[in-house]
Amino acid sequence: MAPAGAKRGVLERLDAGEVVIGDGGFVFALEKRGYVKAGPWTPEAAAENPEAVRQLHREFLRAGSTVMQTFTFYASDDKLVNRGHTQRFTGQQINEAACDLAREVANEGDALVAGGISQTPAYLSRKNEGEVKAIFKKQIDVFIQKNVDFLIAEYFEHVEEAEWAVQVLRTTGKPVAATLCIGPEGDLNGVSPGDCAVKLVKAGAHIVGINCHFDPETCVKTVKMMKAGVEKAGLKAHYMSQPLAFHTPDCNRQGFIDLPEFPFSLEPRILIRWDMQRYAREAYIAGIRYIGGCCGFEPYHIRALAEELAPERGFLPVGSEKHGNWGSGLEMHTKPWVRARARRDYWEKQKPASGRPYCPSMSSPDGWGVTKGHADLMQQKEATSKEQLKVLFDKANKCH
Amino acid sequence: MAPAGAKRGVLERLDAGEVVIGDGGFVFALEKRGYVKAGPWTPEAAAENPEAVRQLHREFLRAGSTVMQTFTFYASDDKLVNRGHTQRFTGQQINEAACDLAREVANEGDALVAGGISQTPAYLSRKNEGEVKAIFKKQIDVFIQKNVDFLIAEYFEHVEEAEWAVQVLRTTGKPVAATLCIGPEGDLNGVSPGDCAVKLVKAGAHIVGINCHFDPETCVKTVKMMKAGVEKAGLKAHYMSQPLAFHTPDCNRQGFIDLPEFPFSLEPRILIRWDMQRYAREAYIAGIRYIGGCCGFEPYHIRALAEELAPERGFLPVGSEKHGNWGSGLEMHTKPWVRARARRDYWEKQKPASGRPYCPSMSSPDGWGVTKGHADLMQQKEATSKEQLKVLFDKANKCH
Amino acid sequence: MAPAGAKRGVLERLDAGEVVIGDGGFVFALEKRGYVKAGPWTPEAAAENPEAVRQLHREFLRAGSTVMQTFTFYASDDKLVNRGHTQRFTGQQINEAACDLAREVANEGDALVAGGISQTPAYLSRKNEGEVKAIFKKQIDVFIQKNVDFLIAEYFEHVEEAEWAVQVLRTTGKPVAATLCIGPEGDLNGVSPGDCAVKLVKAGAHIVGINCHFDPETCVKTVKMMKAGVEKAGLKAHYMSQPLAFHTPDCNRQGFIDLPEFPFSLEPRILIRWDMQRYAREAYIAGIRYIGGCCGFEPYHIRALAEELAPERGFLPVGSEKHGNWGSGLEMHTKPWVRARARRDYWEKQKPASGRPYCPSMSSPDGWGVTKGHADLMQQKEATSKEQLKVLFDKANKCH
Amino acid sequence: MAPAGAKRGVLERLDAGEVVIGDGGFVFALEKRGYVKAGPWTPEAAAENPEAVRQLHREFLRAGSTVMQTFTFYASDDKLVNRGHTQRFTGQQINEAACDLAREVANEGDALVAGGISQTPAYLSRKNEGEVKAIFKKQIDVFIQKNVDFLIAEYFEHVEEAEWAVQVLRTTGKPVAATLCIGPEGDLNGVSPGDCAVKLVKAGAHIVGINCHFDPETCVKTVKMMKAGVEKAGLKAHYMSQPLAFHTPDCNRQGFIDLPEFPFSLEPRILIRWDMQRYAREAYIAGIRYIGGCCGFEPYHIRALAEELAPERGFLPVGSEKHGNWGSGLEMHTKPWVRARARRDYWEKQKPASGRPYCPSMSSPDGWGVTKGHADLMQQKEATSKEQLKVLFDKANKCH
Repeated sequence: MAPAGAKRGVLERLDAGEVVIGDGGFVFALEKRGYVKAGPWTPEAAAENPEAVRQLHREFLRAGSTVMQTFTFYASDDKLVNRGHTQRFTGQQINEAACDLAREVANEGDALVAGGISQTPAYLSRKNEGEVKAIFKKQIDVFIQKNVDFLIAEYFEHVEEAEWAVQVLRTTGKPVAATLCIGPEGDLNGVSPGDCAVKLVKAGAHIVGINCHFDPETCVKTVKMMKAGVEKAGLKAHYMSQPLAFHTPDCNRQGFIDLPEFPFSLEPRILIRWDMQRYAREAYIAGIRYIGGCCGFEPYHIRALAEELAPERGFLPVGSEKHGNWGSGLEMHTKPWVRARARRDYWEKQKPASGRPYCPSMSSPDGWGVTKGHADLMQQKEATSKEQLKVLFDKANKCH
Repeated sequence: MAPAGAKRGVLERLDAGEVVIGDGGFVFALEKRGYVKAGPWTPEAAAENPEAVRQLHREFLRAGSTVMQTFTFYASDDKLVNRGHTQRFTGQQINEAACDLAREVANEGDALVAGGISQTPAYLSRKNEGEVKAIFKKQIDVFIQKNVDFLIAEYFEHVEEAEWAVQVLRTTGKPVAATLCIGPEGDLNGVSPGDCAVKLVKAGAHIVGINCHFDPETCVKTVKMMKAGVEKAGLKAHYMSQPLAFHTPDCNRQGFIDLPEFPFSLEPRILIRWDMQRYAREAYIAGIRYIGGCCGFEPYHIRALAEELAPERGFLPVGSEKHGNWGSGLEMHTKPWVRARARRDYWEKQKPASGRPYCPSMSSPDGWGVTKGHADLMQQKEATSKEQLKVLFDKANKCH
Repeated sequence: MAPAGAKRGVLERLDAGEVVIGDGGFVFALEKRGYVKAGPWTPEAAAENPEAVRQLHREFLRAGSTVMQTFTFYASDDKLVNRGHTQRFTGQQINEAACDLAREVANEGDALVAGGISQTPAYLSRKNEGEVKAIFKKQIDVFIQKNVDFLIAEYFEHVEEAEWAVQVLRTTGKPVAATLCIGPEGDLNGVSPGDCAVKLVKAGAHIVGINCHFDPETCVKTVKMMKAGVEKAGLKAHYMSQPLAFHTPDCNRQGFIDLPEFPFSLEPRILIRWDMQRYAREAYIAGIRYIGGCCGFEPYHIRALAEELAPERGFLPVGSEKHGNWGSGLEMHTKPWVRARARRDYWEKQKPASGRPYCPSMSSPDGWGVTKGHADLMQQKEATSKEQLKVLFDKANKCH
Repeated sequence: MAPAGAKRGVLERLDAGEVVIGDGGFVFALEKRGYVKAGPWTPEAAAENPEAVRQLHREFLRAGSTVMQTFTFYASDDKLVNRGHTQRFTGQQINEAACDLAREVANEGDALVAGGISQTPAYLSRKNEGEVKAIFKKQIDVFIQKNVDFLIAEYFEHVEEAEWAVQVLRTTGKPVAATLCIGPEGDLNGVSPGDCAVKLVKAGAHIVGINCHFDPETCVKTVKMMKAGVEKAGLKAHYMSQPLAFHTPDCNRQGFIDLPEFPFSLEPRILIRWDMQRYAREAYIAGIRYIGGCCGFEPYHIRALAEELAPERGFLPVGSEKHGNWGSGLEMHTKPWVRARARRDYWEKQKPASGRPYCPSMSSPDGWGVTKGHADLMQQKEATSKEQLKVLFDKANKCH
């Protein structure tokens, strides 16, 4: 195993025209495995159940990921407290443990470690630039001390906050990627994807793009708008997409959080591996070279990206030793009519049934039209009280 | 950690009226994690990637499983060869490693180890009773040497072969469970569920039921028919169900293997956790006390069973520390309209959308009406040849 | 135009192996045209708007119907009063007008006139055999006076009442057909389709079968069960089906009335013309020779039956001068991609979309498990009172 | 019956703020009744089967239509020849008969007669302004001679041709309405709805709007864009919508003709009466006062419009004597659970099932990207030859 320093960096790879495969979504995958609590979504598992986090890193590595993102989502002290996390571990302990796990597994292959920060409750509660930047600064200290390979500012609904994040990240001298969780309609202040991208590049981001909130089709479409904006402005950047592994044709501006199925009934929307191969191809054609995933992406989804782009990359991921190309593993199946499915043509054209004839195919998103600064969005340290919940339930019932 | 001998056995628990929670499906879960190849479906990971298998056992234990099934599905030498498995490990090595992993994790909690055998290619290829029983015998030797707590004969499409398996298993003196992979229409020879159950009990099974091939609703319905048959015959048994985690309203007699989505496009059919709570309740009401899962069951599905039956069992699984009852974890969510989903009423009534408006909700199963002894089902050691595949593809195209 | 007497009778045709094409559903078609009120469903239009009824008869004649059923559904005096019909016309006036209209149009082609009676509120309210038969007798007097060609007892949920009807009808000397509105599960007293058919044949029916309540697929399946029963009993009969033009895969024993969409939201379920051709072929193969329709059948649906069976019958209906076989009329369409649809292969394989992504594909039927004699089913002369409705609404809300 | 002259004209009514209810779609309704051939879609029935056309006019009048549109769609001589119509009737005979029928029925109530012209094959074949206008002129001669009350230029895909039509129509001195069959994306030359409307008003149209090609939701949305355009330009007009009675969420720019279900499998998309009430309300709120329908609209659909707007108009249509408001007619139904559906709340919230679990909810439109002037769109007098069809079929197969 080579030391981290010996590996080629993310920009070196992208500048050379190579494809960088990201990893998948830790909070959703670990929630299903029993180590993350839906609602708070905090990453204490890095310190509490390191073997589970390590195993997931390994599965993504095996699937072809060339980036191990530290499992540090929502890991600032204020968020941990805010989300009701019992104080068995400090934010610093969690962040450090997450960096060590990512590095340990990255060293088992040709992967890089990326430290990630994301939008803050502070911004939604109208804290000012200085206050928000101070929060970012504190988180980054651990990343620098642990010497991650590059940094990602991800999951921002407002480009303004993302610019602040990029500015802080650039002070480290590390390569910086920045992704918003927006769709073609733009950020929650109405800034278009093209303008968002220009702002991020001007703030110093080397790689810009989209993560979370929408399905691959929507994310690729949005990154294309970002790329068009950057090129029109005469600027240069690399492009990145890390979408959901859920189909979201029925989302509005706020993305999948507004779908009534979020977060516990999204299963019928999960993308199949062949959807993922289509995504990888379309992203590649669109000029995106950092291609990964977010919530819902399991190791086999990442493997599908790496398999689709194997001709361009020149190699298959290790995990493909357990996967026949386009269903060819079925050639050995017991039943002849299943053997007859061992072909690309079969899987590519299929329209998979939901098995749920009593359910619709699309939903009407919630979303009460509130955004940054609205009283309903102000952060509070305590769980919502019974009285507050009652008010919310009544409000929800009226909306349906 | 108590030694295995100190734990109360499976029959002791069932006789006392307790609920035994089974585990979920290893081949499907590990295929998605990158350690099992779809098509062959063999369990060499037990020896090849033990940390991945151990981790999955641990997740099921944490989710509330009181049984660790050895990951030995299709692990007889002839199958391993037949499925093209490269001979890095002998069948014996795999079976032994699987037993050790199951025992290691079982000892981390109050769980039992079950050794499992399933239907043989030999039976479909018309080998006689002696030949088939000899195959079972060989596999069981390892289980006895490793001193598993009880034995399961599972995944049989023909009750005749299952009876042979039960007869061999009973020679060990261990408790014996037997599950068929059939639906209300009965086994592939047309024997009704009630008659199948009577035959299994008479062959010596202590626990009878259904696993795989159909969704929970269908499996519970079928086990009810088995129970009625056993009671009508004046016999006694315990009952067990380990269904798919996929909705299969459109299956015919052969189950989900005939669905055109098998095995790579089943995602839209995955049951959500609330479906699982309904299953646990209905199984319990039907008098089933060994309640688990098969293909598609992930740790959070098992946890849902344990949570639904917590009132009856008197305790929650360890994994529930990361799960709010009926969505209550959402009380801490940032968006108020998501907080409004923190209630049972919301999730119980929901009809989740597929997000796939261009896809249907049901499929027409394949299935060419061939069964045991048909030339198309004869096992061959080599992968199907290109010419053979061409014939199958043409046959398939004509059927659509 | 030949006088009625000169035409070959229905039994003469069926005995000769000919196909008799029935007509479609008057109450549903005329409700949509504005002449029948949903709820009461009474046929006063025969007297009130004769031109509308005559026009519909003519359209069915043109479409290929060889039977004009008198529009006398629910036309006994007690029903007319019971259903709140204002007394502009007596039952006798309506019945006479209906007979005259049917005869007038029948004489414009080679069609026969059939007088129809159906189940009585009296039977559900537990009147005895004599009382129920007296009601039938009164209605039949008009048919005899107007000299219809044959008689149909249709839309019976209980075979017992249908037997009484057949016995009364046979006293007239006219040929008698009898159809139940039941599915494969049998009549509402649990008598199987086979046994029902035997009872009807023994009561004197020349033609037996199924009408209304279920889709063509279900009705053909049920008539096949009736035929098997009659043949097993060593009896002989002709067979008949007049199904709904609505897909009803989700119905239970009571049929489409229990579907939540009945009667105002059934549009998405309407069969297309190609579905009808499949029905005609399957009915023919099943040995059914009197093939028609019930609620939902429009003239073009009947034409599709006549077109599918044109090879057997030796002629196309008049209305086919305005219909290209299997879409061939599109050869003249302006857009080339629509011209490319001018072929059987295209239409036969199509899976038509609902255009309703927010709606499911199946519904859960209502049905409160009440049947003949239950207090909720006792007929009352007045409209349900507000208080009674309130009770029903509450009951309904609890069921969902 | 008052002479036509005694009635208040269409502009008089609209200027007074009254609602004018249009009629429904004759070609689709009469195709299903057996009098119009799909493909050619020509209106020879006006001369050939006048009783059928008269009856449909009457049904719309009874349903509340205040406009009887002459059934003269595609009734120019060249089109009649082009569409293979056998020369039993000249175009002039058909046009005259259609005018007489419309007037006869209009005189039975308070309805006006509108003469309609629509886009020409000539325009698509690149004839020049003079040639196209000459075709319009010839058709209008009959309308003037028969003294229709006003004129409608409808079903134009290119606003340029519609402007020519309006210019010709204005020479008559009659009020002129003009509707395009476009959606929010604009006409087939890419002119936006707002700009289209401005052009039509400037050409002299008194009433502008949308007909055909899209569902009510899309049409109302497009008319709103037209209205915004007209108002922004400082102009004045009345607004009109006559949408399809089919749900078309999956259409692209060309509308429902490109849907693979056109024209024979559209049934699952048919709007229910409650959808129509929502349409009427939304159109009214949008400021549209001429509210009618096009293909797929049956009499009961028009009645639903008139019932929804009865409070504004001050009266119910005659046909409502056979229709209970919001299902109230069900209060008299035999089954108590059907009586429980006699309420607005029930029908308004319902999501009707398709009864087609093997079908999707949306389709991918065809459409080969050809428009005006393309060789594939050049009109030819003969039916497409077998060789030409073969080419089209192959092209179609490649597109799927």
